[in-house]
Amino acid sequence: MPQPKHARDSITVMTEMVLPNDTNTLNNLMGGRLLHFMDIAAAIAAQKHSNRIVVTASVDNVSFSEPIRLGNIVTMKAQVTRAFSSSMEVFIEVWAEDIPAGIRVSTNSAYYTFVAVDQSGRPIEVPAVIPETDDEKDRYASALRRRQLRLVLAGRMNPQDATELREFLQV
Amino acid sequence: MPQPKHARDSITVMTEMVLPNDTNTLNNLMGGRLLHFMDIAAAIAAQKHSNRIVVTASVDNVSFSEPIRLGNIVTMKAQVTRAFSSSMEVFIEVWAEDIPAGIRVSTNSAYYTFVAVDQSGRPIEVPAVIPETDDEKDRYASALRRRQLRLVLAGRMNPQDATELREFLQV
Amino acid sequence: MPQPKHARDSITVMTEMVLPNDTNTLNNLMGGRLLHFMDIAAAIAAQKHSNRIVVTASVDNVSFSEPIRLGNIVTMKAQVTRAFSSSMEVFIEVWAEDIPAGIRVSTNSAYYTFVAVDQSGRPIEVPAVIPETDDEKDRYASALRRRQLRLVLAGRMNPQDATELREFLQV
Amino acid sequence: MPQPKHARDSITVMTEMVLPNDTNTLNNLMGGRLLHFMDIAAAIAAQKHSNRIVVTASVDNVSFSEPIRLGNIVTMKAQVTRAFSSSMEVFIEVWAEDIPAGIRVSTNSAYYTFVAVDQSGRPIEVPAVIPETDDEKDRYASALRRRQLRLVLAGRMNPQDATELREFLQV
Amino acid sequence: MPQPKHARDSITVMTEMVLPNDTNTLNNLMGGRLLHFMDIAAAIAAQKHSNRIVVTASVDNVSFSEPIRLGNIVTMKAQVTRAFSSSMEVFIEVWAEDIPAGIRVSTNSAYYTFVAVDQSGRPIEVPAVIPETDDEKDRYASALRRRQLRLVLAGRMNPQDATELREFLQV
Amino acid sequence: MPQPKHARDSITVMTEMVLPNDTNTLNNLMGGRLLHFMDIAAAIAAQKHSNRIVVTASVDNVSFSEPIRLGNIVTMKAQVTRAFSSSMEVFIEVWAEDIPAGIRVSTNSAYYTFVAVDQSGRPIEVPAVIPETDDEKDRYASALRRRQLRLVLAGRMNPQDATELREFLQV
Repeated sequence: MPQPKHARDSITVMTEMVLPNDTNTLNNLMGGRLLHFMDIAAAIAAQKHSNRIVVTASVDNVSFSEPIRLGNIVTMKAQVTRAFSSSMEVFIEVWAEDIPAGIRVSTNSAYYTFVAVDQSGRPIEVPAVIPETDDEKDRYASALRRRQLRLVLAGRMNPQDATELREFLQV
Repeated sequence: MPQPKHARDSITVMTEMVLPNDTNTLNNLMGGRLLHFMDIAAAIAAQKHSNRIVVTASVDNVSFSEPIRLGNIVTMKAQVTRAFSSSMEVFIEVWAEDIPAGIRVSTNSAYYTFVAVDQSGRPIEVPAVIPETDDEKDRYASALRRRQLRLVLAGRMNPQDATELREFLQV
Repeated sequence: MPQPKHARDSITVMTEMVLPNDTNTLNNLMGGRLLHFMDIAAAIAAQKHSNRIVVTASVDNVSFSEPIRLGNIVTMKAQVTRAFSSSMEVFIEVWAEDIPAGIRVSTNSAYYTFVAVDQSGRPIEVPAVIPETDDEKDRYASALRRRQLRLVLAGRMNPQDATELREFLQV
Repeated sequence: MPQPKHARDSITVMTEMVLPNDTNTLNNLMGGRLLHFMDIAAAIAAQKHSNRIVVTASVDNVSFSEPIRLGNIVTMKAQVTRAFSSSMEVFIEVWAEDIPAGIRVSTNSAYYTFVAVDQSGRPIEVPAVIPETDDEKDRYASALRRRQLRLVLAGRMNPQDATELREFLQV
Repeated sequence: MPQPKHARDSITVMTEMVLPNDTNTLNNLMGGRLLHFMDIAAAIAAQKHSNRIVVTASVDNVSFSEPIRLGNIVTMKAQVTRAFSSSMEVFIEVWAEDIPAGIRVSTNSAYYTFVAVDQSGRPIEVPAVIPETDDEKDRYASALRRRQLRLVLAGRMNPQDATELREFLQV
Repeated sequence: MPQPKHARDSITVMTEMVLPNDTNTLNNLMGGRLLHFMDIAAAIAAQKHSNRIVVTASVDNVSFSEPIRLGNIVTMKAQVTRAFSSSMEVFIEVWAEDIPAGIRVSTNSAYYTFVAVDQSGRPIEVPAVIPETDDEKDRYASALRRRQLRLVLAGRMNPQDATELREFLQV
């Protein structure tokens, strides 16, 4: 089994400029294009943690509250939160900046899950994650409940067995 | 308030061929690119229902189980399930085909939510949805619980009040 | 020789949203970009009929009468009309929609021809087409004359021998 | 009415390198992508002749005989052949080169027709064409018959009246 | 005149994954594509320093020594070195990583110059740069000589007057 | 050693239409995108001279003085100036045209250097260049000094030994 690695070693910062083809008729970044950017940033973080080829296994619920405009700079920060055998959960935060206007807003965050695979696409074990900061520890702990929610939604876990999730939902 | 419309009136079929730039180093379609395709297909369905400009409000948990290969044909079928004031939930199913090999597999499904807006980006009311088939009726009914889960995850609803969701989770 | 197949089995519906990079300085879809979209939709129909890799052999005269605008939804419906040994003629119709304005117009139709090939690019026989509806039967019958026109224009058939074409031109 | 201009003044040479996303699973340039390249080259020639914004009105029958490979250099030469009021016919020839292998082949030729328009998209008269070389004179003369074929195929001319076309078809 | 700003405030990190369309027939990133990536990263740094729209004024000599492979992760770090009235010099370093192989190499560095402009494209004054680290101070000092070289190469300065440049060339 | 070839045999003309995604928020072509276009045009000229796969080795200082607008036609003319063992210097000139406005301006020129390589990426000798016109002879002669500047800037030549460069700088 590979050596555990620190959460901070996987931190990945990615920056994109919103170009015309990324926008809808209101000149706002399309949600699907942002999901595409986020997937690439998160995949690089998962690659860094595992030193493996990785494939997207799932994305959790993502909400889009703030419009991001043509010409804005999108900054994404991705970091592995926890590993489960061959899979890794990645937390990713997104900011949009209108630099000439001096405005920077937090627009989104999401959890993507990746599986590390070998050259023939078979899952392969990844290092455990060592969280250090308070935020890293919180996300490490809550990863269990998010994993239960994914399994329940995919019909692969009985809600009765999703102890962490049930506790979170205060039931 | 606009006239209710049938769920079937929003059905949108979209087909894409997987090109090299859509793939990772294993020659498989990247998850983020698929999320981008799905967002466009779902947005068109929401446009058809509302006859409005629409913006992506959220995407629910999406799992990627089957690899989709370079050269495969991706078919998406999107349909509005239910409307809530200015927002619409869209169900979208994805199939991948390797036509020369005669293989077609169901690879994904997801729920995207869109908000209808006017030219200045302000939310605007949309028609109610009339479900007809059994599947349409099931998805219409369960839309309530998925909406509660979105609100709970976004911290905008107390889990105690998410009656439909709690019932589903058998708590 | 492969089993004949119904024309309807090859029906392919493809939907595209017109993005900024697809448009000219009048914000209208460029003709060449539409020919590109149509080629992909028609190729998928030919793949479905033949279950083979297909390569474009020709496109017949295409006229562009209606401008298609930025943000419009382009829907294409492609269907194999008739097969000749290793080649297939595909009929493709195009509609453009400005959904918020509630406008949908028929903009184009065209005939593309494809050749089915094996992995080394050599032509390979395809199933015959069984037309069923009146439209399918009409297009099946007239495929002969369009094929003669292609051969005459390519200098590979003597106009005197193009019986069907001459009859159509009432000469 | 604008001053007539020489055919040679509109000559446009355009060069493209075939990139991965332009190719099918056999690593050959897709026909539709080539039609897209050709449309842009031909539009520039029509712009040069008319000094106007131009929109594609039609493309005549195009045959694809030679595969063009990934990494090949595609060279296109476009030139206006004749003008009819606000429309211009453009002749375009295509060559593909595998430069390291020292191979250059003529792969295609086609006729595109463009309409010159003003800023609001209304057709506007263009200069007449003065052909000089023998090839230019031949294509100028035969433009009439190709125009008749386009009109007959579009159902806008009675085959009986297509004198030039009938003569060409030796009927 | 705007308030001076620290060099560190403009630091911009940008990450890109090398996709098929970015590569040549050896599957290596094309030099021009990298220059394109670098221009965007450097422009964002110049935007951050000036809080203005910026346009590229020049790029200094760039050498490409290390091939960057398909699937590699390209990381760029850009930072403003010095401002001259309305122009800013940006230093940009590039690394390429083959993460599964655990290899990360420094591949390039370059100096881009940008001009800050207002909405009508007219140059506008930018803040002076305050260098802090030794590297920042070195690049601040040597910016003068690079500027002289640019002016001499553009034929806008007499080599005799390029004091700093002559000293560097030990003449 | 391969036969010398004439400079004119490598002349390459490339034309591009400026599309929305190539532009910044002022609707001007981004400098990095132009560097990308120029690299492709110059690489084709180097391929023509050497009949080899070529990789970009360096680009010399490039200045951007004239804005190039959305919808403009960019014409590039590239030509090999001189060869040094396995490397070739290519001179490239750029013009931008607003054809409807009847305006054509010279916007840029640059020198790119390429190395010819075999299939495994190893440098391989290229033909010498035979200059014929006065311009070709001038650029052939001055290639030596530009090469010295590249080597000095890369720290691979002592400024004292850069005889041609020193003479040019009148030191």
